[in-house]
Amino acid sequence: MYIPTFKDVQEAHQRIVPYIHRTPVLTSSFFNQLSGAELFFKCENFQKAGVFKARGACNAVFGLSDEAAAKGVATHSSGNHAQALAYAAGRRGIKATVVMPNTAPEAKKAAVRGYGGEVLECEPSTAAREGMLEELVARTGADFVHPYNDHRVIAGQGTSSLELYQDIGELDAVVAPIGGGGMISGTCLTLSNVSPKTEIYAAEPKNADDVYRSVRAGEIIEDDSPQTIADGLKVSMRPRTWHFVSNYVTDVLLATEQEIIDAMYLTWQRMKIVIEPSSAVPLATILKNKELFAGKRIGVIITGGNVDLKKLPWM
Amino acid sequence: MYIPTFKDVQEAHQRIVPYIHRTPVLTSSFFNQLSGAELFFKCENFQKAGVFKARGACNAVFGLSDEAAAKGVATHSSGNHAQALAYAAGRRGIKATVVMPNTAPEAKKAAVRGYGGEVLECEPSTAAREGMLEELVARTGADFVHPYNDHRVIAGQGTSSLELYQDIGELDAVVAPIGGGGMISGTCLTLSNVSPKTEIYAAEPKNADDVYRSVRAGEIIEDDSPQTIADGLKVSMRPRTWHFVSNYVTDVLLATEQEIIDAMYLTWQRMKIVIEPSSAVPLATILKNKELFAGKRIGVIITGGNVDLKKLPWM
Repeated sequence: MYIPTFKDVQEAHQRIVPYIHRTPVLTSSFFNQLSGAELFFKCENFQKAGVFKARGACNAVFGLSDEAAAKGVATHSSGNHAQALAYAAGRRGIKATVVMPNTAPEAKKAAVRGYGGEVLECEPSTAAREGMLEELVARTGADFVHPYNDHRVIAGQGTSSLELYQDIGELDAVVAPIGGGGMISGTCLTLSNVSPKTEIYAAEPKNADDVYRSVRAGEIIEDDSPQTIADGLKVSMRPRTWHFVSNYVTDVLLATEQEIIDAMYLTWQRMKIVIEPSSAVPLATILKNKELFAGKRIGVIITGGNVDLKKLPWM
Repeated sequence: MYIPTFKDVQEAHQRIVPYIHRTPVLTSSFFNQLSGAELFFKCENFQKAGVFKARGACNAVFGLSDEAAAKGVATHSSGNHAQALAYAAGRRGIKATVVMPNTAPEAKKAAVRGYGGEVLECEPSTAAREGMLEELVARTGADFVHPYNDHRVIAGQGTSSLELYQDIGELDAVVAPIGGGGMISGTCLTLSNVSPKTEIYAAEPKNADDVYRSVRAGEIIEDDSPQTIADGLKVSMRPRTWHFVSNYVTDVLLATEQEIIDAMYLTWQRMKIVIEPSSAVPLATILKNKELFAGKRIGVIITGGNVDLKKLPWM
């Protein structure tokens, strides 16, 4: 199992710069006052495809040799990674195929197709999904880009906190959401090198607290179909992300569904930015653990802004 | 009637810089592709109090002598100017009193009070509103800061396009929404000095087309209680703003209610920013008049982001 290094992050950044946004870092005097901390929001909701995952996907896609690229890329995902991979492949002019359960919302399929990707529908089970992907890869030679258990993806996600560090300097802590652990792993990889004193907190929905329990158990515990509004955070860690979480994360902080919704609403209302529920989990945990952060400089990773505007959780 | 000069804009900028955000200019490859133009969105929705009006209000408030300031400021408004003036007064530590109809939503009153302002409620008629304000000014000596027919306010609003010009350089055209004309007047004032070749388009709801009709008639025509979702654009011009509109505006472009809603929705969805309906009118007019803008560099003023998140027009 290859664990990516900081050099991989630096190379990733050089590689993907033409294809991604250098996202802005926003501040809010309202949230500074409310939290008692100085917050720096790294806004990956403004990223290409509306999500940080464009970074990892572009790193994987643009790191392929021409020969490998000609065979296309493939993944299984019903979420943001699917769009991000389709975006990256579209920029390189190669084919992206995404295996999705036939129960996935039409909007998600349309988004992948909108970036030029192809959607293959399967029965909504892990076995069906993995089987179809395996068959596809065997048949076409497409490169499988896992949403997070992939060293190229982790190195790509690490470029977000690299930019944050370049723009804002040393931070006392960074708080990022955790699902499978791709963003947190990239954050650990970068910060443990450029700013090892910075604490890293993983923010997780209480309803999908597998990482919280894994850290306490000392091994990966998987959730069984967790129910949370933070739909990007339902998946479980894999060995590569567990490596970073178990070695570098200071602690895992939990937020209830209502706390996530409240933080999301308040962010839209006061910062005027559209963020998805997963992106509100860090702020929710900061507001309920003020004593951990008071008086400190805190980075907050806003991971994405892909949300159904017609179905908002406070309606 | 004192007509402000570009020197007033420059002085305003120096005066207000400590109290306002230098708002970012965002771009969107999606909207560039859709419009065929190169669009630069000046994001005043990220401004203090969520709206460009913080600029004019701060210029008026911080331009007062200590003696005048001690008597406070006052206005009548049930909208964004009320919050902006309360914000500015709060920053200077003086009193702001806002006359509002007793029919105004609680949220608007609460927003003014949230910035430390006082709300005086009156009957919902122009006579009652003006009478109460006049009495207040006579009694307290407070400085009346009109929402737009005030040279200090117009000069303050002109700082937005000054920053846009400083950050982006020459533009072929700028499109801004028009209600009473404060933002457009400030834009005309600045651009006619720093970039006289830049065309200035006023974007107006078809349902509140008093400026469109005024320009064609050659005199101010007032709307009688127009009904539009762009609630910031219902008011009519006054002599100072008519001066700028009649002399400097290239044309007035109209958008229907549905076009405004569609442009607002698409902006939230693709740019991940929260904008109010009034702010969507420029983009709506650009998308329906592509031939005017194709291949050109266009500034788009996003005026504000104060919207009731629980009552969105597409729900």
